Amino acid sequence: LPLTLDLDRQRRCGFAEVIYGAGKPAELIAEIMRRQRQAGQDSLATRVTVETAKAVAEIIPEVRYNPDARCLLAGAAANKTPSPLDMSATRLVRHVAVVTAGSTDAPVCEEAIETLHWMGIPFRSFNDIGVAGPDRLLAAVPELRQAAAVIVIAGMEGALPAAVGGHLSVPVFAVPTSVGYGATLGGLTPLMGMLSCCSSNVAVVNIDAGFKAAYLSGLVVKS
Amino acid sequence: LPLTLDLDRQRRCGFAEVIYGAGKPAELIAEIMRRQRQAGQDSLATRVTVETAKAVAEIIPEVRYNPDARCLLAGAAANKTPSPLDMSATRLVRHVAVVTAGSTDAPVCEEAIETLHWMGIPFRSFNDIGVAGPDRLLAAVPELRQAAAVIVIAGMEGALPAAVGGHLSVPVFAVPTSVGYGATLGGLTPLMGMLSCCSSNVAVVNIDAGFKAAYLSGLVVKS
Amino acid sequence: LPLTLDLDRQRRCGFAEVIYGAGKPAELIAEIMRRQRQAGQDSLATRVTVETAKAVAEIIPEVRYNPDARCLLAGAAANKTPSPLDMSATRLVRHVAVVTAGSTDAPVCEEAIETLHWMGIPFRSFNDIGVAGPDRLLAAVPELRQAAAVIVIAGMEGALPAAVGGHLSVPVFAVPTSVGYGATLGGLTPLMGMLSCCSSNVAVVNIDAGFKAAYLSGLVVKS
Amino acid sequence: LPLTLDLDRQRRCGFAEVIYGAGKPAELIAEIMRRQRQAGQDSLATRVTVETAKAVAEIIPEVRYNPDARCLLAGAAANKTPSPLDMSATRLVRHVAVVTAGSTDAPVCEEAIETLHWMGIPFRSFNDIGVAGPDRLLAAVPELRQAAAVIVIAGMEGALPAAVGGHLSVPVFAVPTSVGYGATLGGLTPLMGMLSCCSSNVAVVNIDAGFKAAYLSGLVVKS
Amino acid sequence: LPLTLDLDRQRRCGFAEVIYGAGKPAELIAEIMRRQRQAGQDSLATRVTVETAKAVAEIIPEVRYNPDARCLLAGAAANKTPSPLDMSATRLVRHVAVVTAGSTDAPVCEEAIETLHWMGIPFRSFNDIGVAGPDRLLAAVPELRQAAAVIVIAGMEGALPAAVGGHLSVPVFAVPTSVGYGATLGGLTPLMGMLSCCSSNVAVVNIDAGFKAAYLSGLVVKS
Amino acid sequence: LPLTLDLDRQRRCGFAEVIYGAGKPAELIAEIMRRQRQAGQDSLATRVTVETAKAVAEIIPEVRYNPDARCLLAGAAANKTPSPLDMSATRLVRHVAVVTAGSTDAPVCEEAIETLHWMGIPFRSFNDIGVAGPDRLLAAVPELRQAAAVIVIAGMEGALPAAVGGHLSVPVFAVPTSVGYGATLGGLTPLMGMLSCCSSNVAVVNIDAGFKAAYLSGLVVKS
Amino acid sequence: LPLTLDLDRQRRCGFAEVIYGAGKPAELIAEIMRRQRQAGQDSLATRVTVETAKAVAEIIPEVRYNPDARCLLAGAAANKTPSPLDMSATRLVRHVAVVTAGSTDAPVCEEAIETLHWMGIPFRSFNDIGVAGPDRLLAAVPELRQAAAVIVIAGMEGALPAAVGGHLSVPVFAVPTSVGYGATLGGLTPLMGMLSCCSSNVAVVNIDAGFKAAYLSGLVVKS
Amino acid sequence: LPLTLDLDRQRRCGFAEVIYGAGKPAELIAEIMRRQRQAGQDSLATRVTVETAKAVAEIIPEVRYNPDARCLLAGAAANKTPSPLDMSATRLVRHVAVVTAGSTDAPVCEEAIETLHWMGIPFRSFNDIGVAGPDRLLAAVPELRQAAAVIVIAGMEGALPAAVGGHLSVPVFAVPTSVGYGATLGGLTPLMGMLSCCSSNVAVVNIDAGFKAAYLSGLVVKS
Ligand SMILES: Nc1ncnc2c1ncn2[C@@H]1O[C@H](COP(=O)(O)O)[C@@H](O)[C@H]1O
Ligand SMILES: Nc1ncnc2c1ncn2[C@@H]1O[C@H](COP(=O)(O)O)[C@@H](O)[C@H]1O
Ligand SMILES: Nc1ncnc2c1ncn2[C@@H]1O[C@H](COP(=O)(O)O)[C@@H](O)[C@H]1O
Ligand SMILES: Nc1ncnc2c1ncn2[C@@H]1O[C@H](COP(=O)(O)O)[C@@H](O)[C@H]1O
Ligand SMILES: [Mg+2]
Ligand SMILES: [Mg+2]
Ligand SMILES: [Mg+2]
Ligand SMILES: [Mg+2]
Ligand SMILES: [Mg+2]
Ligand SMILES: [Mg+2]
Ligand SMILES: [Mg+2]
Ligand SMILES: [Mg+2]
Repeated sequence: LPLTLDLDRQRRCGFAEVIYGAGKPAELIAEIMRRQRQAGQDSLATRVTVETAKAVAEIIPEVRYNPDARCLLAGAAANKTPSPLDMSATRLVRHVAVVTAGSTDAPVCEEAIETLHWMGIPFRSFNDIGVAGPDRLLAAVPELRQAAAVIVIAGMEGALPAAVGGHLSVPVFAVPTSVGYGATLGGLTPLMGMLSCCSSNVAVVNIDAGFKAAYLSGLVVKS
Repeated sequence: LPLTLDLDRQRRCGFAEVIYGAGKPAELIAEIMRRQRQAGQDSLATRVTVETAKAVAEIIPEVRYNPDARCLLAGAAANKTPSPLDMSATRLVRHVAVVTAGSTDAPVCEEAIETLHWMGIPFRSFNDIGVAGPDRLLAAVPELRQAAAVIVIAGMEGALPAAVGGHLSVPVFAVPTSVGYGATLGGLTPLMGMLSCCSSNVAVVNIDAGFKAAYLSGLVVKS
Repeated sequence: LPLTLDLDRQRRCGFAEVIYGAGKPAELIAEIMRRQRQAGQDSLATRVTVETAKAVAEIIPEVRYNPDARCLLAGAAANKTPSPLDMSATRLVRHVAVVTAGSTDAPVCEEAIETLHWMGIPFRSFNDIGVAGPDRLLAAVPELRQAAAVIVIAGMEGALPAAVGGHLSVPVFAVPTSVGYGATLGGLTPLMGMLSCCSSNVAVVNIDAGFKAAYLSGLVVKS
Repeated sequence: LPLTLDLDRQRRCGFAEVIYGAGKPAELIAEIMRRQRQAGQDSLATRVTVETAKAVAEIIPEVRYNPDARCLLAGAAANKTPSPLDMSATRLVRHVAVVTAGSTDAPVCEEAIETLHWMGIPFRSFNDIGVAGPDRLLAAVPELRQAAAVIVIAGMEGALPAAVGGHLSVPVFAVPTSVGYGATLGGLTPLMGMLSCCSSNVAVVNIDAGFKAAYLSGLVVKS
Repeated sequence: LPLTLDLDRQRRCGFAEVIYGAGKPAELIAEIMRRQRQAGQDSLATRVTVETAKAVAEIIPEVRYNPDARCLLAGAAANKTPSPLDMSATRLVRHVAVVTAGSTDAPVCEEAIETLHWMGIPFRSFNDIGVAGPDRLLAAVPELRQAAAVIVIAGMEGALPAAVGGHLSVPVFAVPTSVGYGATLGGLTPLMGMLSCCSSNVAVVNIDAGFKAAYLSGLVVKS
Repeated sequence: LPLTLDLDRQRRCGFAEVIYGAGKPAELIAEIMRRQRQAGQDSLATRVTVETAKAVAEIIPEVRYNPDARCLLAGAAANKTPSPLDMSATRLVRHVAVVTAGSTDAPVCEEAIETLHWMGIPFRSFNDIGVAGPDRLLAAVPELRQAAAVIVIAGMEGALPAAVGGHLSVPVFAVPTSVGYGATLGGLTPLMGMLSCCSSNVAVVNIDAGFKAAYLSGLVVKS
Repeated sequence: LPLTLDLDRQRRCGFAEVIYGAGKPAELIAEIMRRQRQAGQDSLATRVTVETAKAVAEIIPEVRYNPDARCLLAGAAANKTPSPLDMSATRLVRHVAVVTAGSTDAPVCEEAIETLHWMGIPFRSFNDIGVAGPDRLLAAVPELRQAAAVIVIAGMEGALPAAVGGHLSVPVFAVPTSVGYGATLGGLTPLMGMLSCCSSNVAVVNIDAGFKAAYLSGLVVKS
Repeated sequence: LPLTLDLDRQRRCGFAEVIYGAGKPAELIAEIMRRQRQAGQDSLATRVTVETAKAVAEIIPEVRYNPDARCLLAGAAANKTPSPLDMSATRLVRHVAVVTAGSTDAPVCEEAIETLHWMGIPFRSFNDIGVAGPDRLLAAVPELRQAAAVIVIAGMEGALPAAVGGHLSVPVFAVPTSVGYGATLGGLTPLMGMLSCCSSNVAVVNIDAGFKAAYLSGLVVKS
């Protein structure tokens, strides 16, 4: 197998190497997960198709697959599904807020949530509150202001991160999605828009990269 | 002179041919204005440099030049400068609202206002109310709702037309500007973003084309 | 469900939130339509595949699906199919003219017509009158001049809106289509061409966005 | 001098090597012209700046420079300026018709005319007859139908070649120009539009390449 | 049916309207062919899939389909397949030479040949003579010099038209193809290369547009 | 003046509105600074030319201008120049590390440092340690691991953020620069490369946007 | 068959014409292989699908197909599979080192290895040693320094060639791959990054072109 | 000074760090050259303007500047200007052949030659032998076949490397130049064309990067 695992990454970076599942055969993914388990590391594979996930599960039965997120997990995070932070107790728990502009952005949101779950970072989510219906964001602002970092997921023109950023004093990680057609250019338009964002606190990750925004905001929460 | 004037346009389209001033020698612009005057038509030339404007003024002294707007006018609209609609009288006058996201968008706004003035269309303007400071738009919404058409001028990520559109029941004409750097791609990013806009009532014109948005919203007011 | 409906949009904007059907599961579309009906609103979903439409119809049997337009409707507009304005009576009814350049542009035209129908706006249509056969447009001009707003749908080089605009004194909403190959770049070429249009009265919407052009011209008719 | 002249080209191709003047020092251009004269060939240099032209003229005084066309000529074509075909005699002379969409396209038109002149090909020109003023093209059609080949020069959306092509049974050579701003992308938009042209008889050359269109249509006339 | 046929085109342009088959339902194609036959015109439809061709053939049995060319023909050209010019007789017949760079360019070559056949223009073909094997072109040059116009079809870097053009005194119509991967950008790279061609006699048509190059060179032959 | 200041931003976001200096006349910048001072806010203007800076300084003499950074400051941060964190005392002070790949990236680095200085955030810098000389980064790693957030500034292929990210457990904010030529596409190449980065902890800001990376990493330090 | 084989290439270039398999029917590939065998040449066809490979094997049974590499071979290289250089004997054998950044780059690596095998060039391979796990490259450097030329295959941001190049005194041939999503633009991002590479010894080939990098490094080894 | 010199590069890579001169102040360049001399290394700075070169020469008088090449040298290579290999003696000296397509490509050729000179690599040059005049390349082929590596420099469509590669059995390093206009896209068109090249032995470097092609071919000669 053409493989040189970076098992030292957990020590250097705080978390194990995340497996980029696209284009990898099931045997390769299973082998990586096997070696990570041997090294005492929990595994997260992103962009895994249903077919591949099934094939891995035949080799390593204890994995958990989330088809919406296209994520395959092994170890602690595989044993329970993610659930949002219970806010009734106390609001002092540092956490990430995950925001989507439209309901079609859900898969990217799911990938972000599974990543936070794998990192052990508390989260809340606020869905479908894009700028065309402005009251929705305004209603969420007081709760968003409690988060230590915010992820904003949006396709089409990608206007939401600028609007969210203008209300907050924490880093906003913007995720452009490939939702839309024509002039959205498969997500390049919201990507470029978010990079041009007039709010000062907005950083950007790759198109549909829910994983990356979650990883970064998780690091901020742990900071 | 390599010229075939379309003097019939005023009859067909309601307004005379607008002169695209970029790259035209002063003699050519002066000759067009001379023939339009002969035909009883008021002239508007856009994208005219200071140097060209001066040279035209030496041939036709009664023109008026607005250097911020880069517009040169002859006829009725040349005799007085544009002024916004007086709202104290009555709010029933059909008019256009011109909105900018940032103070750097002013030149495009000026071009739009000179065009409306040349068309004889009443207007109001709302400047520097971009989404990063959300209270500014919210404060303007009640007044914006009085307009028959709205022009929104924005650079960088171009998020403002979507936000404005979500509050209104009239057509919004969005003008991307070349304000910004890097990922704004000289205005292509807000252009593509505005075309991908999730508000249903947003149409788009060319980058920095204040003239076009004004012309279209003027037609709506006359509708 | 990751949903925050904007049921207030009808009040603010005059029409309910239109459902962007691409990528949404049937359950989600059905749930939105159910809540809109509860709020007394008619539903329009665009870009719905045949499969999704069938699945929604199993949940909400009274919807109507137009496979050419890829539109799914609920409420008043679902009960009858669109039909063009009867011109025999009187020509004073304000209406929209919908023009296509080629017969391959028909699906985008259908989407525009279903949207106008949902809005309750009268319309007429003029098909396959692109510039390569110039007599076709000339023949239609007298009738086009009766409309309060005109939609022009064209792929390939997208020359038709400029030609139509030159004959009219009302706003023209240009829709580039993805018809063509190679240098048409999936519709980007007519899109950019229409934005660069030398006729003053042409605004542009996204590639294949028949819905948007219809919505905007419907607002002009209601103006 | 880093030079390997192709003096055999006149034999193979019918005309001498044309000198691409951009970026070439005056000494280099003068040296090429000197050697071409020795070989009995007339010289045409395109894209020559005023400064370079003056410096060449100091070395070779008998050159002629057309600053609008940015062309520098030596030999027969340098001794007289181009003039259009006299149509009063007889219409049977095979010739090229050169058409522009707007008066700003004049420099490209001039380059085309100087090239035809250098080739010894008769021509006529029709200026500023873009599609926004449709009567202008219709008026020219009967005369355009007399040409053996037609050059159409247009910037902005580049719609004119399609419109011209639809009236004719001869090859149309379309030249996109860099006239326009924003979405015209420095001429890429009319270039791509002309390549996507729905008229069957339209071939395309590079942006602002009046020289190339003239060369090709000259070959057709000689055919 | 959303159809406005341009039956007058044969009179104006010399040949009937060619049917752009992509995306058109079989019924629509059949109906156009039916009306063209009524008007005494031969039909050519390009970019027709096998499935559509079969469905048309069920309505109009006398059509001929060339699956490599993706062309469907009705009328005179449907009754026999194209065959190259017999050179044994005399070389004085004006004809088109069709050249390909690689054997993978064959489908575009076939489309060009069917178009010439439909126009009644004699042709010869020279296949797979790209610049990487230079003797192949050199061997063909004497025969290429007999043609009145030359079509050069090439993918990848599209170098062949420049090389061919340097040997000839007639117009060369270059057709970039979508053959290649990565940096060929689906044909945009040879397209842009051919437009930048340093040979003076090269005009360009759209990617894979064998039809257009054939039409233009056919007009030159008839000139 | 076309101005609607967002003086409430300091309350909402923790820091005052930063002035985008490009294209703003000196009077406008001076007026904004005057109002911010009235509101008790320190001012930072980015992308200010030397000429504009001088003109502002004539109106408000107490500003400080850093020509390398193109930054103009008023208030506390104007009174002293930035200096890096003194590491001799204790390494427990939370701070930002600013890294450049080449010495040509210095201006962007300066903008980042002035921004951190304006925010009151401690920083250290590591210059000219690009991947082509790998020992340079390895030598810096132990010190980089002490920072709470890291800014990596790089042009050309923009490989450094990936290399830095692989050594660290804190967020890395990558700034592509416009350093380079040809295939660097004015910074688009490192921008796209950084977004595609295979290290999990890398977020990206606009080309040359030292200000944004500093603002975000400053928020992390304050977290 | 539209075929003009360049059987002289082996004499001029040292190796036979490589068959570009994409889009070629099996009969065509088989015919080329048959003629090459007749001329005493070994065949290599790249980018051959499984289906085509099977069909060719039915005509020429002695071919060997490597599905990961998508390569089909005939002649000497078909009789045994490639195996890496045995380093135990002596390190003086000139050879190529093939490096990949990630395990997903394996197919391109396989194509390179089959090409080297066909050329008879010794090779070694180093897999999955991308910059995010820096120790992996450092561990390989001593062995990489023994190679006469190095191939580096990487997707996403394509940072590895710069890092490898900085350690070596031999030519590095960089192959960008289409591995990644969003901002990787199907491989254009690593392509442009590698071209912008700050290491002086990095040349670039087309996206996924393992064949080309192998061919070039094989020529260096033979140098 | 923001500087971390990589003085070890000569040991690792065989040659010292080359100074990228664009955007670097004269003091910085002089300081780097001073330190390189201290380390016993010869200096080469590329892309240095005349002004900067003069300012450096005031600090370090013994530098040599080649304004055509925009190169500034210190050390051995500064003491004499480059001169081509004397072929009368013996043809067995391994050397590089440098080829240009047009005389306008001279500056890039000069940069390549200065780099080879700095490396101490023998070279010959062949200028202005582009494909439009095919006899020129054919005449040079016998001499080109004597080189150990070949550099081909071409702008416009960049067809020459493919043509040269087809004649040779050594690596060809292709340099696209920014010569041309419109569709050449500042050199992107020949860049993409060269990457798509159908000759197997062509590797590519950045636009105008004469330095890189020289460095790589120098390494091959030393191989
Ligand atoms: N700023 C502008 N942007 C776009 N089009 C314009 C502008 N100014 C004038 N035009 C249009 O340009 C055309 C005139 O072009 P020309 O014949 O070159 O003067 C008219 O049809 C105008 O509608
Ligand atoms: N304006 C132009 N556009 C495109 N090609 C040109 C132009 N002028 C001259 N050429 C071509 O450039 C070649 C000469 O290039 P060079 O050797 O650099 O002078 C000739 O083959 C001409 O056909
Ligand atoms: N995978 C490949 N990538 C790029 N070029 C290739 C590839 N395989 C073969 N070729 C080249 O393609 C040419 C053959 O093209 P064709 O005549 O279409 O078979 C030969 O000159 C090869 O050098
Ligand atoms: N003309 C050039 N094109 C590309 N890279 C260059 C050029 N000149 C120098 N370099 C590289 O730039 C790096 C130096 O960058 P810097 O530290 O900014 O001087 C060295 O690694 C050189 O190999
Ligand atoms: Mg929604
Ligand atoms: Mg502002
Ligand atoms: Mg039609
Ligand atoms: Mg005009
Ligand atoms: Mg071949
Ligand atoms: Mg350096
Ligand atoms: Mg890996
Ligand atoms: Mg030349």
